[in-house]
Amino acid sequence: MPESWVNSGVDLHLELTGGGKRAALITALRDAVRTGRLAPGTRLPPYRALAADLGLARNTVAGAYAELVAEGWLTAVQGSGTRVASRAEPLPPARTPKKAPVPAPRHNLRQGRPDPTSFPRTEWLAAARRALNVAPHDAFGPGDPRGRPELRAALAGYLARARGVRTSPERIVVCSGFAHALRLLFPAVLPGPLAVEAYGLPFHRSIFDAAGVETIPLALDEKGARVGELAVPAVLLTPAHQFPTGGPLHHDRRAAVLDHVRATGGVLVEDDYDGEFRYDRKPVGAVQGLDPEHVVYVGSVSKSLSPALRLGWLVLPEALVDAVLAAKGEREAWAGVVDQLTLAEFLKAGAYDRHIRRMRQRYRRRRDLLVDALAERAPHVVPTGIAAGLHAVLRLPPGTEQSAVKAAAWQGLALDGLAAFRHPASTMSTMDGLVVGYATPPEHAYPAALDALCRALPPV
Amino acid sequence: MPESWVNSGVDLHLELTGGGKRAALITALRDAVRTGRLAPGTRLPPYRALAADLGLARNTVAGAYAELVAEGWLTAVQGSGTRVASRAEPLPPARTPKKAPVPAPRHNLRQGRPDPTSFPRTEWLAAARRALNVAPHDAFGPGDPRGRPELRAALAGYLARARGVRTSPERIVVCSGFAHALRLLFPAVLPGPLAVEAYGLPFHRSIFDAAGVETIPLALDEKGARVGELAVPAVLLTPAHQFPTGGPLHHDRRAAVLDHVRATGGVLVEDDYDGEFRYDRKPVGAVQGLDPEHVVYVGSVSKSLSPALRLGWLVLPEALVDAVLAAKGEREAWAGVVDQLTLAEFLKAGAYDRHIRRMRQRYRRRRDLLVDALAERAPHVVPTGIAAGLHAVLRLPPGTEQSAVKAAAWQGLALDGLAAFRHPASTMSTMDGLVVGYATPPEHAYPAALDALCRALPPV
Repeated sequence: MPESWVNSGVDLHLELTGGGKRAALITALRDAVRTGRLAPGTRLPPYRALAADLGLARNTVAGAYAELVAEGWLTAVQGSGTRVASRAEPLPPARTPKKAPVPAPRHNLRQGRPDPTSFPRTEWLAAARRALNVAPHDAFGPGDPRGRPELRAALAGYLARARGVRTSPERIVVCSGFAHALRLLFPAVLPGPLAVEAYGLPFHRSIFDAAGVETIPLALDEKGARVGELAVPAVLLTPAHQFPTGGPLHHDRRAAVLDHVRATGGVLVEDDYDGEFRYDRKPVGAVQGLDPEHVVYVGSVSKSLSPALRLGWLVLPEALVDAVLAAKGEREAWAGVVDQLTLAEFLKAGAYDRHIRRMRQRYRRRRDLLVDALAERAPHVVPTGIAAGLHAVLRLPPGTEQSAVKAAAWQGLALDGLAAFRHPASTMSTMDGLVVGYATPPEHAYPAALDALCRALPPV
Repeated sequence: MPESWVNSGVDLHLELTGGGKRAALITALRDAVRTGRLAPGTRLPPYRALAADLGLARNTVAGAYAELVAEGWLTAVQGSGTRVASRAEPLPPARTPKKAPVPAPRHNLRQGRPDPTSFPRTEWLAAARRALNVAPHDAFGPGDPRGRPELRAALAGYLARARGVRTSPERIVVCSGFAHALRLLFPAVLPGPLAVEAYGLPFHRSIFDAAGVETIPLALDEKGARVGELAVPAVLLTPAHQFPTGGPLHHDRRAAVLDHVRATGGVLVEDDYDGEFRYDRKPVGAVQGLDPEHVVYVGSVSKSLSPALRLGWLVLPEALVDAVLAAKGEREAWAGVVDQLTLAEFLKAGAYDRHIRRMRQRYRRRRDLLVDALAERAPHVVPTGIAAGLHAVLRLPPGTEQSAVKAAAWQGLALDGLAAFRHPASTMSTMDGLVVGYATPPEHAYPAALDALCRALPPV
């Protein structure tokens, strides 16, 4: 039952709706101040007068005034009554935005992003509720710099089961994502130079460049990275599903890279960026499981749940744990404790498995739609790297990639060509192709994006 | 209605409780595998047999098997039936822990930590639920590197009202806490050398040391940092409540430091670490409000909510926004999106104000108990810096600090002396005193900690 009233001094137009009268009065006054209806300096009626006007108890109004004074909305000065507090005036937004905002493309098939509409909000909230109900108080104090024990235990179990990772919770360090893992490792823990795949994420190379870590490209062939050509002890690979070309590292090469790091005292950094998304058979286990003392395994929820969560993990050889903690800063947990506890509960309750399964089905369907569309409308273009992951590569005839990317842009379709991923120092022969991130668009937008892709592809 | 059964092949001892039969069967089988009751390699009964044994539809059991195969708990091999999947064996925990675990002190009055039992779990979860109900889908895609717009808008409003900060959401950059803010600023945005207060957090100095940023100590007197002695353009101060000695920066000094940074083209970095906790009058506004183009204002929820949340913010002069974003890494949000959206909602709904008010009352009561206990049991020890904050300083006669810290340790009481905070290069005369963090213990443990403190104090 809303009530409104006019006071002789100020016209408050308060509407007291629902709930307790005191709380309703506080909310109404706060909103009036926040929206500027009550300007700074305005004198409020004495609480006795307002109480009489509103038919409320004096204590109710006095209590509401006191609360709002404590919150900083009002000020009470002896002899001067209660006034609306003066607030700092906001600055105008910058006159000239430095960068013109880039209009979103009509269709987006850039790689590396899971469909943002698929984040399991309800299940995540339910897990957060269960996790906060049982979390010990010390979770909200300064924590274990390796990350919450609940999460490390849940990860150790999940990674063993799903990815064949052999570890113990003591060797896991939670971080805020893959890029953070790279910053922790290089150069403080592992000085360069570092061998990397000749095609990979330019974003990762820019992190190495900024850190002064030299990267040496390793050529790729049909078996994956040519690890026989390794010239330095440390190497970063994507063994489950080479990024971006798409094949798994051949069994012989897995053995060879381990021989190499053992012989040289080096380390393999294993980027398991989409290890959960394999469609046609059981995923290849992580290389880490073959030699936990020579592999740093890095994973995150960026592809499986959302890159916006900022949660990742390093699974470390025992010899590197202390050095990584030192690089991290012993006082700095980086990842928020609520997210850590929630992910632990999400893993423990099987919600992570269920989500992965749901997304695997969805992405496989999208991949199949891509394959079918190409077979029908561009049979000369053969998709590769499609057994796993969130993207496919459409190989193109030499010299045609750049015009295909431009044709796509002409259709309002954002995607990258393979050239964007090539290490500038690589001497292997160039590959032409389009990298199609089929997981990126929301479900309803996918068919139109596929259509735009087919229209952009070069004719036979 | 639990059912249990024995199968001819394996003794599953399944207990199907509540809910749908399929979900219950999945849970029971998963638990049996997880706990090791069903060892890797164990062959499960054919789904027809299990369905008959349990009185379930065949489809129900077949569906449960398929789910668990998809999750990696079981494997299905043509001709070999369904078996418990082999999992990576966990590694044993490290044999020799590198560091012996430090036993927790019986009483803890170390500074800088809010009572971890006070984290408002219910309100935080309610805000998370409301925030996730309305968040746009793009929140779960790659986000604005400055942080979620909802949070920056809420912070701009809150900081204007509560701290007199003048800004716009475009000038706010969300980060993962104060230490992260320092790492972003120095040396990439602000090269050293940097003037700092002669007493301050050693943890901050270690960040500067690691980054190769020279710090030059500024002596303190009864008006705060002696900013007239500034010899370099950049300076880091705690104007609201000098850490750890406890006084606000004098009005003249606030004006003088702004004159200095304007004249030298320098920057004041304002560490507003406990700006919300002032007990005796309205808080001193932030210096930032006096000159937004020459002050970097840094705050976080570490004192107000929990250091485990890892949420902080920089309020920047317009000229520094792009440089900070470049240092941050344009692709890296650092703080998790769920926490960001939740804090935005928490601020918007007034829950942050209510929490601050509740904690302010609690901490003021603790401060009063400290003051009363000292007046009664150690009247020669005068607490200082008690008008605000989460700690007090008990000044001691010259030369007695070290023995007082030792006497406290003898009582099982952890706290620091002022010496722990002194810049090693400072030439100002030393101060003896104990830094008493009265916010740290849970409510029930505070009286005993106070008692231990009084017993540890040197006699007259």
